[in-house]
Amino acid sequence: MPAGPLTSVGIGDDAAVVGAPSGSVVAAVDMLIEGRHFLRDWSSAYDVGVKAAARSLADIAAMGAVPTALLVAFAAPGTLPARWLADLADGLAYEAARAGAGVVGGDTARADSVVLSVTALGDLAGRSPVLRSGAVPGDVVAVAGPLGHSAAGLALLSAGAGQRGSVGQRGGLVAAHLRPSPPYDAGPEAALLGATAMIDVSDGLVADLGHVAAASGVRLEIDSAALVTGGPLGEAAAVLTETTPSGGTDRGDSPPALALSWVLTGGEDHSLVATFPASAVLPPRWRVIGAARTGSGVTVDGQPHAGAGGWQHFR
Amino acid sequence: MPAGPLTSVGIGDDAAVVGAPSGSVVAAVDMLIEGRHFLRDWSSAYDVGVKAAARSLADIAAMGAVPTALLVAFAAPGTLPARWLADLADGLAYEAARAGAGVVGGDTARADSVVLSVTALGDLAGRSPVLRSGAVPGDVVAVAGPLGHSAAGLALLSAGAGQRGSVGQRGGLVAAHLRPSPPYDAGPEAALLGATAMIDVSDGLVADLGHVAAASGVRLEIDSAALVTGGPLGEAAAVLTETTPSGGTDRGDSPPALALSWVLTGGEDHSLVATFPASAVLPPRWRVIGAARTGSGVTVDGQPHAGAGGWQHFR
Repeated sequence: MPAGPLTSVGIGDDAAVVGAPSGSVVAAVDMLIEGRHFLRDWSSAYDVGVKAAARSLADIAAMGAVPTALLVAFAAPGTLPARWLADLADGLAYEAARAGAGVVGGDTARADSVVLSVTALGDLAGRSPVLRSGAVPGDVVAVAGPLGHSAAGLALLSAGAGQRGSVGQRGGLVAAHLRPSPPYDAGPEAALLGATAMIDVSDGLVADLGHVAAASGVRLEIDSAALVTGGPLGEAAAVLTETTPSGGTDRGDSPPALALSWVLTGGEDHSLVATFPASAVLPPRWRVIGAARTGSGVTVDGQPHAGAGGWQHFR
Repeated sequence: MPAGPLTSVGIGDDAAVVGAPSGSVVAAVDMLIEGRHFLRDWSSAYDVGVKAAARSLADIAAMGAVPTALLVAFAAPGTLPARWLADLADGLAYEAARAGAGVVGGDTARADSVVLSVTALGDLAGRSPVLRSGAVPGDVVAVAGPLGHSAAGLALLSAGAGQRGSVGQRGGLVAAHLRPSPPYDAGPEAALLGATAMIDVSDGLVADLGHVAAASGVRLEIDSAALVTGGPLGEAAAVLTETTPSGGTDRGDSPPALALSWVLTGGEDHSLVATFPASAVLPPRWRVIGAARTGSGVTVDGQPHAGAGGWQHFR
């Protein structure tokens, strides 16, 4: 596997040695469990590798840091084909390379189902980390990357509609679920733009903004008109409410309401959402979707939203 | 949990931030799987925490580095008592603190059995890492920490003899299996003493020296007379060959042969074994047990040894 530009000792010794040029290291670990975070019927081994890497790497970006390395612990049944493992490694290496990092260490063991634990390391290049706790009233809330695409892709797969219909846009949503593609470089960019708080959207926009609101002691207000619910999301919502009158949910949503629920509560896109001073001049990929106010919790169009329970994956 | 002196951001944000004063970070990951590396019937949750932490922290010490932080990923059945998890966290925190590190990050998930993945980070304080590949003919081989104690403890537990007999010495062997106690500070010490190669004994002395021999392109010669096979090990071997004529093995070993086999092939003591220039003046805890020669592989008293297959845990 490629070891990344900052790796001086990679896989093969007791431990790896990775550069930490600014004198500190940013580190996060995430698990990916078969049956909970992925199903082998839907995800290829390569998909699983990409998703496992993306989950941890996005946490590094959400601190405003640049990813440098991954360490991967992997447990699987002895019956798992060697090819599956090779494809998994390829997926991990691809996503690590996309983030500028290398796979520098690992451990393998036997278990009854596939369990992956990925630790990502990163460097702040001398900047302070962007925490969840720095938002202040008056800040704007902005997001880089798609929202609700992974949830829509999962809904399409669950309805058996992932493989049917137009390969184009709907295929893109399924791919967004199977192989999330976080905008890693938006993390350090946000830090340079003066972001006061940041988090990656792993549990859903409302749930994750709820963590920022709680840590910062502010209310975060979302303007639903600023959210993107048309395009592929709108098309997928229309297809699903056609296919299943309940739209694959138990809410009997209309297509626009279904698309909005994906955007507000869908997890696993690993897009970045941050707060910035109102005076910040943001590049186009940072879409302003709301503002920080005095108070607590998350409101959507002025109303408290029940989406804070978070993303439920398959169960 | 205590976060360690170098931690500027601990548990609770997207990622931790840990000091890396010398501009690089040493990192290793190890898994601990229920049924393979521990049995809940034998190990308390606290024991499991200590063992999981020790495995990864010893890898950091084996590079000559000082441990700074642990990140813990933990999957378990939903039926696991909350108390078990709290005791596990206590064991992890205890062993991390013993090594000078803090627990700075974690992730939890559901799985059918208990799976722990522990990533340890460390700092080299400006030194070069001590790799497996630096041994040269003429070096001495020395070990810090016990050998075979964990294997003897496992044999006592397996024979149902762990709780019987003298609580003292035999109890110490069982504790050595359940809660290994690596000599972390011997790692940086070895680096300062000029160690040319180092590894921690996780798979067994012969197996792990085999990795050093292969990486360095030398033969490593062990003098069995320099190994400690008496004391508690000798007593345990005598008890076990009394109890079961085959000594708990399929070799029909005599007590001294059984004790020697624990020392040569027993894993999980996580003691440190290193090579040093013959001119090095070693403090007493570094016991010289052999030398590096031209050639390949590992020999014991001049004969190739079959112990390179490594430690098999329970299966």
